[in-house]
Amino acid sequence: MNDTSEKVTPSILDRSRIVLAHGGGGQLTDQLISEVILPRLGNETLNELDDAAILNGNIAMTIDSYVVDPWQFPGGDIGKLAVCGTVNDLSVSGAKPLGIALSLILTEGFAKRDLETILDSIGESAAEADVKIVTGDTKVIPGSGIFITTAGVGLRDPAVKLASRYIRPGDKIIINRPIAEHGLTVMLAREMPDMQSVLKTDASPLNGLIDLLLKQVPGEDVRFLRDATRSGIAGVTTDIATNTGYHVMLHEPDIPVDAHVQHAADMLGLDVLEVANEGVVVAVVSPDVADQAVAVMRQHPYGRQACVIGEVQNNRDGICEITTMIGGHRIVHKPYGEQLPRIC
Amino acid sequence: MNDTSEKVTPSILDRSRIVLAHGGGGQLTDQLISEVILPRLGNETLNELDDAAILNGNIAMTIDSYVVDPWQFPGGDIGKLAVCGTVNDLSVSGAKPLGIALSLILTEGFAKRDLETILDSIGESAAEADVKIVTGDTKVIPGSGIFITTAGVGLRDPAVKLASRYIRPGDKIIINRPIAEHGLTVMLAREMPDMQSVLKTDASPLNGLIDLLLKQVPGEDVRFLRDATRSGIAGVTTDIATNTGYHVMLHEPDIPVDAHVQHAADMLGLDVLEVANEGVVVAVVSPDVADQAVAVMRQHPYGRQACVIGEVQNNRDGICEITTMIGGHRIVHKPYGEQLPRIC
Repeated sequence: MNDTSEKVTPSILDRSRIVLAHGGGGQLTDQLISEVILPRLGNETLNELDDAAILNGNIAMTIDSYVVDPWQFPGGDIGKLAVCGTVNDLSVSGAKPLGIALSLILTEGFAKRDLETILDSIGESAAEADVKIVTGDTKVIPGSGIFITTAGVGLRDPAVKLASRYIRPGDKIIINRPIAEHGLTVMLAREMPDMQSVLKTDASPLNGLIDLLLKQVPGEDVRFLRDATRSGIAGVTTDIATNTGYHVMLHEPDIPVDAHVQHAADMLGLDVLEVANEGVVVAVVSPDVADQAVAVMRQHPYGRQACVIGEVQNNRDGICEITTMIGGHRIVHKPYGEQLPRIC
Repeated sequence: MNDTSEKVTPSILDRSRIVLAHGGGGQLTDQLISEVILPRLGNETLNELDDAAILNGNIAMTIDSYVVDPWQFPGGDIGKLAVCGTVNDLSVSGAKPLGIALSLILTEGFAKRDLETILDSIGESAAEADVKIVTGDTKVIPGSGIFITTAGVGLRDPAVKLASRYIRPGDKIIINRPIAEHGLTVMLAREMPDMQSVLKTDASPLNGLIDLLLKQVPGEDVRFLRDATRSGIAGVTTDIATNTGYHVMLHEPDIPVDAHVQHAADMLGLDVLEVANEGVVVAVVSPDVADQAVAVMRQHPYGRQACVIGEVQNNRDGICEITTMIGGHRIVHKPYGEQLPRIC
């Protein structure tokens, strides 16, 4: 009955205990899911490990907890993240958001005006995404900060077919905008709170952009969508390689990175491919519609810098590779733990 | 950008800060919802403040965070609570559970075997309730313990009409089993962890019992269902009085309380009416079917001690009153904050 877990800061190599990196969305998170969670709770739906589960043929459901530290950062806060993350998880599964459930875990002493700021931000993001908060819960614990869990329910047209199993060799990989802005913004806000930085989170609801894409590009030619959050572009593209068994080739010179973001990453020794985004969608589309898909995305404010960043190739090695700026090649690995804890 | 909320343990009277009691499900929680949350996020669906929101006519959605301390106690743990609570919230809204989304916030150093115990318990409770965990998320933060948020989606027969607005004078108030077991079990486990207590949580999925009731008792005669969790029977019956505007009369000698539970409550100075339950449903039914509803509940393992505990009367004062053991009368108030923090 005693809590044997109190007050231990374990080594990342202590396999008997949870470490921060288990929440990083990388290999360690995958291990926890496959070794501890799925053997106990696995079923046909959960085993898909998609951003959203599909129930009863057309009801999409998703959930995510947000523990970002600090809760506020340039361009947004934990409330905006929670709404955008849930809307985006529904959208990349091809569903239109129907409602969001909001559960707050507050800490004793948290300032009400800070809660108000966060709720205002939730309201603004929900209004932008045209979705309502339909139910909620509030709990209070000792400690500091705020933790938010949002669940989303949406409806999916049963005709929509988006999954990594539809990906074919030759398909192009597209993203909608420059990468790595969210993670580096939070990192700078945390480590250098007094510094004015020019970075700003990219957190944004992508349902409008994705809706446009799915309406204007012929159905079956959009194979797969995923928002590149924890573990970044590298997480998504290595998952594509692993799950399809094909070779994924990225082209570094084509991947848009803002110069300030690149400087911040270089300074901190971080790989922009692995840094979390909150407004970047990775789309895999058939080669015939790649130009059209890019053009459609560019019509939308959140897709002005859309471009092709790579392709799926026919070698069946399940590896993700990148041609670098200077023409070399390197293998892209799924991040092990986390570069940056508590980034979302 | 700085977190102004760190490391302050505020007085319950400091109106600028969150206190533990804001999470107690009593008057302070109601205030937070009506003064801070609804003005920012309110809409037709959220404003109902029901256990579950109804979307698109027949999709029920609910969410709850669980922060119970300790995470394990006689008869159950935080995992069982999370599944039962979500199943029950769907059930009292008249919906059949379709899937549960599970979000874990773990703390650094939490023992993996404890997580395994909790996941096993989630699996067992979900199997008993015949519902699957369909999607999830995992985050890790510094600190100690574990916080679980579960969201549920269910389908409701559009013919089912359960809401406090259907309650009429003369209606009977029924509960399925003895009260106050969960809250006192957790309290003893927290305050006297080395003592063997005979108390045991009542946490249980009530969908089977409620299903039976709604099948066997004519549709419109079951007016309203609510599980009596935080703030206990008093919370539900005072809400019924407030929301309908009628007088609610409870009859203390009829309310089943286990003798050990009553002793524990007396010892701790707690009112059993205000203590949290996790397996008690309050049903309001028309007087014509009250005996039948009790008989139906008694067919089910979780309803063996079902009985009528009071009625709705015609005075339009919105007050809840109780006739006591010794024949006196007292007003029942909605608990202000919490008797017992972190009980679920």
